[in-house]
Amino acid sequence: MDYNAAFEAAVETVRSEGRYRVFANLKRHNGQFPRATWERPDGTHQDVTVWCSNDYLGMGQNPVVLEAMHKAIDEAGSGSGGTRNISGTTWYHNALEAELADLHQKQAALVFTSGYVANEATLTTLYKILPGLIIFSDALNHASMIAGIRNGGGERHVFRHNDLEHLEALLKAAPVNAPKLIAFESVYSMDGDIADIHGTVALAKKYGALTYIDEVHAVGLYGQRGAGVAERDGIMDQIDIIEGTLGKAFGMMGGYIAGSAAMVDAIRLWASGFIFTTSLPPAVMAGATASVRWLKEHNERRDAHQERAQTLMCRFREAGIPVLPSVSHIVPVLVGHAHHCKMISDMLLNDFSIYVQPINYPTVPKGTERLRFTPSPDHDDKMMDELVSAMDKLWSHCNVARMPAVA
Amino acid sequence: MDYNAAFEAAVETVRSEGRYRVFANLKRHNGQFPRATWERPDGTHQDVTVWCSNDYLGMGQNPVVLEAMHKAIDEAGSGSGGTRNISGTTWYHNALEAELADLHQKQAALVFTSGYVANEATLTTLYKILPGLIIFSDALNHASMIAGIRNGGGERHVFRHNDLEHLEALLKAAPVNAPKLIAFESVYSMDGDIADIHGTVALAKKYGALTYIDEVHAVGLYGQRGAGVAERDGIMDQIDIIEGTLGKAFGMMGGYIAGSAAMVDAIRLWASGFIFTTSLPPAVMAGATASVRWLKEHNERRDAHQERAQTLMCRFREAGIPVLPSVSHIVPVLVGHAHHCKMISDMLLNDFSIYVQPINYPTVPKGTERLRFTPSPDHDDKMMDELVSAMDKLWSHCNVARMPAVA
Ligand SMILES: Cc1ncc(COP(=O)(O)O)c(C=O)c1O
Ligand SMILES: Cc1ncc(COP(=O)(O)O)c(C=O)c1O
Repeated sequence: MDYNAAFEAAVETVRSEGRYRVFANLKRHNGQFPRATWERPDGTHQDVTVWCSNDYLGMGQNPVVLEAMHKAIDEAGSGSGGTRNISGTTWYHNALEAELADLHQKQAALVFTSGYVANEATLTTLYKILPGLIIFSDALNHASMIAGIRNGGGERHVFRHNDLEHLEALLKAAPVNAPKLIAFESVYSMDGDIADIHGTVALAKKYGALTYIDEVHAVGLYGQRGAGVAERDGIMDQIDIIEGTLGKAFGMMGGYIAGSAAMVDAIRLWASGFIFTTSLPPAVMAGATASVRWLKEHNERRDAHQERAQTLMCRFREAGIPVLPSVSHIVPVLVGHAHHCKMISDMLLNDFSIYVQPINYPTVPKGTERLRFTPSPDHDDKMMDELVSAMDKLWSHCNVARMPAVA
Repeated sequence: MDYNAAFEAAVETVRSEGRYRVFANLKRHNGQFPRATWERPDGTHQDVTVWCSNDYLGMGQNPVVLEAMHKAIDEAGSGSGGTRNISGTTWYHNALEAELADLHQKQAALVFTSGYVANEATLTTLYKILPGLIIFSDALNHASMIAGIRNGGGERHVFRHNDLEHLEALLKAAPVNAPKLIAFESVYSMDGDIADIHGTVALAKKYGALTYIDEVHAVGLYGQRGAGVAERDGIMDQIDIIEGTLGKAFGMMGGYIAGSAAMVDAIRLWASGFIFTTSLPPAVMAGATASVRWLKEHNERRDAHQERAQTLMCRFREAGIPVLPSVSHIVPVLVGHAHHCKMISDMLLNDFSIYVQPINYPTVPKGTERLRFTPSPDHDDKMMDELVSAMDKLWSHCNVARMPAVA
């Protein structure tokens, strides 16, 4: 068996579908975000504006966060040195979990190494804790939720994206007494649409199901204290399990769940992906705690963020650039063709010093390939001028479909 | 359906088996490791000596590592802001991957959010890349390897721990032309025994199998440059896939694989657990790079580590404390009963200010419950005197079985 040939063939498959990924090698500069330096494959450098970061609010350079990290390193060193159970629980971990429980107004919270692991480990483990559990999963749920549901191995039904009628039909068809869970997201990050949380909770109550919401692209960004869309919509107390990340709006890394004390304790004791891994470094916990705490008090940052996103959407629309109908901070522009999408992204980077990663299949369906822009409060008018003008030129140059311009 | 009752019942199951875990809440103090402050459940504090950290060499307080972290924070801020593909690849990530490839003398390396994720994602994905793959897995492999193998869903055979005859019988019984992989660890962290890597590689060659070795408890600790037991045994170049962690001897967090460029590229492009998650913060990458680099040059630290472990084993044996037959830096002491194990650990902590976590089922088989000591170069003679004297007293007090004393 020629294994190397098999590995090369696996790479070739991806390449032949136009999906081979070369990671853009960036250096962020503290204090200058969204500006960064890109190292070209030939080793030369170019300063660029980053338009596709999930550090949505620029918390990755907030001095409060960096100061907390520096202090924790000085106090406690680098790594935690153990799993949570074996010497790896520190005051920093407990402080963050208390902060997150408070953020979501739940009894308890539990931190995982990432949002991916939080989803995967929690959903898998719920199948073990609730024998016979049936999970109802939105068709556009993130890969980490799909992994958790699949690995759990129990019964699952996929409902059409944000389609509550379909969800209800599936709930109705399931045995009345079976334990049930509805797994969905608030903000869907590739389209920027938002779930009907009230409607979903109403169905959950009607059919006796738990609700599990992924607010990864909403925590820090929505609600009076940044707890997410469920807070904004005044329904957070009705959600059973809230999952979030520390790696996007909070500008750090790690993930978590929040909910009842009994639920969190059960996951803590049962979830392999939580138990058998080194806990996060004190400095990461301290930085995340500072970030969550700061964003509770800084609603003006969220307002500025929404203004920037709205402004960019308007400006694109005025220029006839086909923005998909987002109702959030995410600004997706339809290209509709993998090759075009990659080409436009390359030209933006090389000719206009604008970095936005093309989003192709399998992240989005074929025919809906897109550029996904994430303006932050630090993307100023001049950067927007440059972006809109570059897009306008490329749209003409590459002859991509436009929208009718709106005034 | 009363979900909260179900969660409480899941907790109660664990409690009734004597396995309920209360995490010890610690504060490490930079520069004073292995000393730390323990916060008791009632909120009062006690200074303790930590005897169960996996920061085996105290790299978590090496100034070279902390300096690299501080510098990266000042330069680049906190989080990376994206997945590896979408704005989350930085110079720090690439530098670390180059450093790790060099450490293991392989063409390439790939960093994951943890060693757990590295194992899970890689093994699952290998089933996809190599259709029909059969994995042969050591019976004592870590939970993360088991998760990857199980989630991959392909054919698997478990061979008795470190039993090459059994492994060969299973290899022989499998179809000659099927792709095969042998998954094992070098140092098994609960017993401290070490695999016969030469013997395993010989079987792999005879039956045309790939080798996958988890060196999580060996990287940084064995070999002239700290690449692990395969380096020490002069057989690193014969291993196809080496997996390691940055969270134990390297004192940070994160995990990785190293191997051929084609293998690494295929995993990079195919592994969901690698692709769909925020990349590690620049400061974590910079700290890990500094740690790996420093340990390449500091063999004396590894020698001191081995000396401490040998000394502790001898001192325990002299006192008739039943050390299990470890051939590594891990010093496991048999108690053989979950309740005794927990009680001794509690008394060590409360009465002697010695923190060592009891290791009970399911981490180890019932009847083999143990205390697992991990002496570092910073555990001095005085700390050992205190530990051995405390253990001696408790062994008499609790009437636990002794070994015949050896001279
Ligand atoms: C909806 C959603 N959930 C979960 C995750 C995973 O979170 P993390 O990056 O913290 O692993 C992501 C993206 O990475 C996501 O987009
Ligand atoms: C043998 C083994 N492999 C993998 C892991 C996971 O590594 P990490 O802690 O980096 O997730 C561990 C322990 O945590 C381990 O003991």
